[in-house]
Amino acid sequence: MGNFVDCCRGFWCGTKNPNVRISLPVVCFVWQIAMIILFGVFVRYDEESDAHWSEHRHEKNITSDIENDFYFRYPSFQDVHVMIFVGFGFLMTFMKRYSFGGVGFNFLIGAFGLQWALLMQGWFHSLDPTDGTIKIGIENIINADFCVAGCLIAYGALLGKVSPVQLMILTLFGITLFAVEEHIILSLLHARDSGGSMVIHTFGAYYGLTISWILYRPKLDQSKHLGSSVYHSDVFAMIGTLFLWMFWPSFNSAISDHGDGQHRAAINTYLALAASVLTTFAISSLSAKKGKLDMVHIQNATLAAGVGMGTAAEFMITPYGSLIVGFLCGILSTFGYLVLTPFMEKYMKIQDTCGIHNLHAMPGILGGVIGAITAATASESVYGHEGLINTFDFEGAFANRTPAIQGGFQAAGICVALVFGIVGGIIVGCILRLPFWGDPSDDNCFDDEVYWEVPEDEESIPPILEYNSHMVGKSADRM
Amino acid sequence: MGNFVDCCRGFWCGTKNPNVRISLPVVCFVWQIAMIILFGVFVRYDEESDAHWSEHRHEKNITSDIENDFYFRYPSFQDVHVMIFVGFGFLMTFMKRYSFGGVGFNFLIGAFGLQWALLMQGWFHSLDPTDGTIKIGIENIINADFCVAGCLIAYGALLGKVSPVQLMILTLFGITLFAVEEHIILSLLHARDSGGSMVIHTFGAYYGLTISWILYRPKLDQSKHLGSSVYHSDVFAMIGTLFLWMFWPSFNSAISDHGDGQHRAAINTYLALAASVLTTFAISSLSAKKGKLDMVHIQNATLAAGVGMGTAAEFMITPYGSLIVGFLCGILSTFGYLVLTPFMEKYMKIQDTCGIHNLHAMPGILGGVIGAITAATASESVYGHEGLINTFDFEGAFANRTPAIQGGFQAAGICVALVFGIVGGIIVGCILRLPFWGDPSDDNCFDDEVYWEVPEDEESIPPILEYNSHMVGKSADRM
Amino acid sequence: MGNFVDCCRGFWCGTKNPNVRISLPVVCFVWQIAMIILFGVFVRYDEESDAHWSEHRHEKNITSDIENDFYFRYPSFQDVHVMIFVGFGFLMTFMKRYSFGGVGFNFLIGAFGLQWALLMQGWFHSLDPTDGTIKIGIENIINADFCVAGCLIAYGALLGKVSPVQLMILTLFGITLFAVEEHIILSLLHARDSGGSMVIHTFGAYYGLTISWILYRPKLDQSKHLGSSVYHSDVFAMIGTLFLWMFWPSFNSAISDHGDGQHRAAINTYLALAASVLTTFAISSLSAKKGKLDMVHIQNATLAAGVGMGTAAEFMITPYGSLIVGFLCGILSTFGYLVLTPFMEKYMKIQDTCGIHNLHAMPGILGGVIGAITAATASESVYGHEGLINTFDFEGAFANRTPAIQGGFQAAGICVALVFGIVGGIIVGCILRLPFWGDPSDDNCFDDEVYWEVPEDEESIPPILEYNSHMVGKSADRM
Repeated sequence: MGNFVDCCRGFWCGTKNPNVRISLPVVCFVWQIAMIILFGVFVRYDEESDAHWSEHRHEKNITSDIENDFYFRYPSFQDVHVMIFVGFGFLMTFMKRYSFGGVGFNFLIGAFGLQWALLMQGWFHSLDPTDGTIKIGIENIINADFCVAGCLIAYGALLGKVSPVQLMILTLFGITLFAVEEHIILSLLHARDSGGSMVIHTFGAYYGLTISWILYRPKLDQSKHLGSSVYHSDVFAMIGTLFLWMFWPSFNSAISDHGDGQHRAAINTYLALAASVLTTFAISSLSAKKGKLDMVHIQNATLAAGVGMGTAAEFMITPYGSLIVGFLCGILSTFGYLVLTPFMEKYMKIQDTCGIHNLHAMPGILGGVIGAITAATASESVYGHEGLINTFDFEGAFANRTPAIQGGFQAAGICVALVFGIVGGIIVGCILRLPFWGDPSDDNCFDDEVYWEVPEDEESIPPILEYNSHMVGKSADRM
Repeated sequence: MGNFVDCCRGFWCGTKNPNVRISLPVVCFVWQIAMIILFGVFVRYDEESDAHWSEHRHEKNITSDIENDFYFRYPSFQDVHVMIFVGFGFLMTFMKRYSFGGVGFNFLIGAFGLQWALLMQGWFHSLDPTDGTIKIGIENIINADFCVAGCLIAYGALLGKVSPVQLMILTLFGITLFAVEEHIILSLLHARDSGGSMVIHTFGAYYGLTISWILYRPKLDQSKHLGSSVYHSDVFAMIGTLFLWMFWPSFNSAISDHGDGQHRAAINTYLALAASVLTTFAISSLSAKKGKLDMVHIQNATLAAGVGMGTAAEFMITPYGSLIVGFLCGILSTFGYLVLTPFMEKYMKIQDTCGIHNLHAMPGILGGVIGAITAATASESVYGHEGLINTFDFEGAFANRTPAIQGGFQAAGICVALVFGIVGGIIVGCILRLPFWGDPSDDNCFDDEVYWEVPEDEESIPPILEYNSHMVGKSADRM
Repeated sequence: MGNFVDCCRGFWCGTKNPNVRISLPVVCFVWQIAMIILFGVFVRYDEESDAHWSEHRHEKNITSDIENDFYFRYPSFQDVHVMIFVGFGFLMTFMKRYSFGGVGFNFLIGAFGLQWALLMQGWFHSLDPTDGTIKIGIENIINADFCVAGCLIAYGALLGKVSPVQLMILTLFGITLFAVEEHIILSLLHARDSGGSMVIHTFGAYYGLTISWILYRPKLDQSKHLGSSVYHSDVFAMIGTLFLWMFWPSFNSAISDHGDGQHRAAINTYLALAASVLTTFAISSLSAKKGKLDMVHIQNATLAAGVGMGTAAEFMITPYGSLIVGFLCGILSTFGYLVLTPFMEKYMKIQDTCGIHNLHAMPGILGGVIGAITAATASESVYGHEGLINTFDFEGAFANRTPAIQGGFQAAGICVALVFGIVGGIIVGCILRLPFWGDPSDDNCFDDEVYWEVPEDEESIPPILEYNSHMVGKSADRM
């Protein structure tokens, strides 16, 4: 009991205990068991993944198995899956001693988040009214991956400063908030957002930034020596960058309309991403003394165009319109890294490890605005009669909506995403400030030693050991 | 002649000569030429890859080119291909000085194995009775990749302790054994095993473990300092882990039935893999003194669910059933790494470098058992009349089989895989013990120096050279 | 003004100034803005990516969205995209201190090149005569990626010796030349070259080699210590190798005919690549003193079969024919690395950093020859009546062409590619010799320091710093 009091005092006075030996297993087990029970009660196969498919086919007069939605979307799903786990994961390996935490906790968040997302999104979007169950198919698992992306973006702001238990909590609430804001934006406002500029990026980024603001660490510079990269960690991060960059066309087209919708979304995103590479290189070189390029910019700002095209990709934004979006996103994002991130850390107490404000927040809002403008200016002459209805789903209760009104609702969607991100971030941030979640102390951030068994350094392989024993002694102490 | 006697004595008394300058080229050339001749005699395009396809289409009244099996399976094939070469390859780069051997010999085995597999599997499954040739298409090359996976699993147990010549022999026999046991399990017993829990994983793992037992090296601890990882080699291994984890849904669905079969297999595997990540993290943290996670567990045990779903993925195991399988596999596999691998090395003389017993053997058997149970409990109310017939292929000679009987045959399949693995392993292990295959000595294991030109170390780049010349001298000696 | 004169004198007398702070941003901005304007004037969606698709479908009686070309080609496109950015990019990370430049400049070239290629190829192949615009769809963006590949091959010869500004110029002219030679070969000569043995590889390689010859650096050995690999950089390069190797079947089949064409091209390439791995390992081992394998061979020569099958992949070359091609390519390419590269550097003044002569030039020509022979020997008995017409497009103006004549035109295509590569290379090489493009001096090649902010070395992380302060001082100087 005295021990317990001591413990509490220690916690509230700021002595951090990053031992998660009890808390992490408990959280993992309890939540996984909860998932199993909830899936048992609620989740079933939909008609395209159920063994009754062949009967369903005959009923609906579907001529061939190839028209199963699986074949329309599975290749894109796999690309999205790679983005979530390798893309985000390796993008976060850039620090000299936080690669395990970057790719490893990303893995953990993703694996939990996608299960919870299937449930939360299912309750809102795929509930079968006849039996109260959620019917899942390929589109649901793409959406679950999307939902996870929001939380991984938030992790980017907090990288190296939080415990895996905090990340699990961030994910639990993040997915929940996501599903609600998504329901409001896509169903109630009937906004279109196939690549999630608003729903995923704006929400995820402000959620993470707000949490980072609440968890502000005034003495973080004690860990500064570990917060930068080494040569090979920058190369690892490029694996993440490139897989995100290459597969973003699949991300923005994965759940667009069959046929021209997916086709156009992929082409538009492909073009925008190409343009942003050039402007990123230009600004990066222009801003450095001897014109030297900065890997931070190349790793991140080249991707901003994917975010910026998240809403408009499936619209008739035209190929040159896509290039313009990419052009602007590359510039905006690189300037963010040069100017805004240091500014926000110094004056606004927001420590944004990966610079998600530059990669997701600003391009996300820009993407929402571009989407609203593109929607508002849509016309039957450009889209065709059927095309306009298909692209904006002007059907059922929304049959009378005009493009101009649609533009207004798109803009409203941005605000919803922002509000959910910030308010949600404040609430979850306060929860994460509680002192028993096992986060590292200020001089222990960005260090895999805290949560991982880290192998000995390469410097200490045998032939060198003999000659530099003092070095090894020191190095071994760190282990 | 005296030289020859000396040579022999040297060999039989244990002096190892790992020079493969003659043997490796001879094996590669002879076997590759044999492949060319056998392909020349036996292998032709099937009707979907032959230029007569357009005529075949008209005959069979196929309305569109999109119904060519290529479009059903090629995306999954490419994912499987990535798993075989990048997934398995990089998973084996975790050691500080055996990354070349890990990824490089994996490449060699794979490239030879798939050719031999096309022949062996072709003779059993794709022989055209009209002209005695093997007709190959997309499904054959997926199956060839699957077949190779069995041998790569076996390599996992032997990593760092065998020569490339031994690996070529292991592959030659492994593929042969695989094709026979596969024929017995899938054709004669008519068991279903689309992701190969039995056929691939159980067989491959026991084949490798038995060989490792026969090749037991009592003095392997002389190489212990090279058998562990360094920081960046663990990050490389995560590339392998993630590509295996992400693409396992494609592995288990690649050759399932068109339509709902592939769709359901992908979803089930996706869910099971997610669950196993959480239980792996939980057990890994729980088992360490300060709750620190172990990269070995994260790299391997998270994948066990893919193995465990290898048989049941295409069945109506239900989404929560998949989560339960994943839950159990993560726990089982992590416990294996914690308890069984050291136990087996100490008391059973099985040195299992990658822990394939935990990742493939146990989850493989578990997967077979789950498949048998799921099959035995299948019913028309769950699958529908047509669905049950399609899923279990209750057609032709097997039209009268009931699910309960099918369950029995599934269980029999596990035994066949086990027997083939163990008996095959004993025979091949004895062949590999012959002293002229160029394997490394006990103090030379886990070292790329033996079979590769290894570049100088990073430590010795010029600016440092000047100051640490003794270090360089030593380091250069190693080259 | 005096400053300017000094500057000029410095340039012409050989003092290099690799500061690209003005030139690189100017080039990037001006060219990107030019792209936007040209796209604005010329580029539109084609009927399959335009919102009028649903009307187009009804008109043409297309039964399902799945027959949109997107679903035939998008998975292959994504594989090609991975080859261009991760494959080529990581293959060029093998040097100890040029990984940033390898993967980063590859990224820049690719992103610019694909935009310019869409225009150049569009003007030749996709111009809509009714309104003078280029209509783009999935096939165009695959072709744009192909076009970029030509320039990236050329970069391989120049890796580490040129500035990013020079690379942008190389790409601008390279794409232009490519589009013209492609038009001549594919449209005027009506040769088939779906995987680009002639159009991409032969052209790209001779273009790069000729430029390298013109930019010959007699004192390059001053940078020799940086021109080799370290252990982990070789593992990074294997990522590039494997993604190229695995996805080459997609490369050669991406734009083949729907149905059997794509199917057969993938299978043939898959087989050829497997065979080349075995012969590469064989020759590599045979050529080294103790039979030790050389990573340079494994990383490169294993890929030669993909190049060698670039023309014939879609033909009925038979499975064993594919194996023979792979067999030869592996041998030819490995011998190239062993014998020709050093010879060419010493006696022909061609410094070929990545050995593109062995990986692209020779196998490219061989591939063209194999294609010509296979085409010349085609017959109706093998292809079927329709199959022959489909495979060789013997329609319209070419309806009367026979296979034998086709073979002749295929051979002519090789010559066109060669001439364009060499003549183009001479012209562009002379332009790149101008002294104001910011290339590094001879003792500064293969060093990322020149164009990149390079992080501190791993050796100097804190615990070691204290003990080796002299080392750190030196190491910091390099930064």
